[in-house]
Amino acid sequence: MKVRVHVMLKDGVLDPQGEAVKHALGTLGFAGVQGVRQGKVIELDLAATDRAAAEAEVKAMCEKLLANTVIEKYTVELMGETA
Amino acid sequence: MKVRVHVMLKDGVLDPQGEAVKHALGTLGFAGVQGVRQGKVIELDLAATDRAAAEAEVKAMCEKLLANTVIEKYTVELMGETA
Repeated sequence: MKVRVHVMLKDGVLDPQGEAVKHALGTLGFAGVQGVRQGKVIELDLAATDRAAAEAEVKAMCEKLLANTVIEKYTVELMGETA
Repeated sequence: MKVRVHVMLKDGVLDPQGEAVKHALGTLGFAGVQGVRQGKVIELDLAATDRAAAEAEVKAMCEKLLANTVIEKYTVELMGETA
């Protein structure tokens, strides 16, 4: 089972990395970039085949390791066997 | 127009960050993690409203700044106005 996790800073939290990318895009001549937020994407390949069990396991991984839930939010996307 | 860009290391390229996450998950007791790849996700808020123009602009951004195309691959996902 392939699972994709997105970890982004929460909306109110300052994102200096995103601001740096926004500034760099402006410098390169890309106008009209109103906002940039940068986060992490983690693709996991799990032995589990049950969707509900896999989702619960990945959420536990996020809470314990993958995301800092004080300042970050995460979303779990099950991609199935073929992705 | 909201656009989401995924930047991942190409498949043949060693991903030490992903390996570190895999090892850490094993240490925490999560068995059955067969592989982990970590990448970046960049969410852009563009002034452009034309989908084709926005996609072309974001691909140019990826080629010039967001991705190192020697070792990284990127995907562009248009999320529309509401996302």
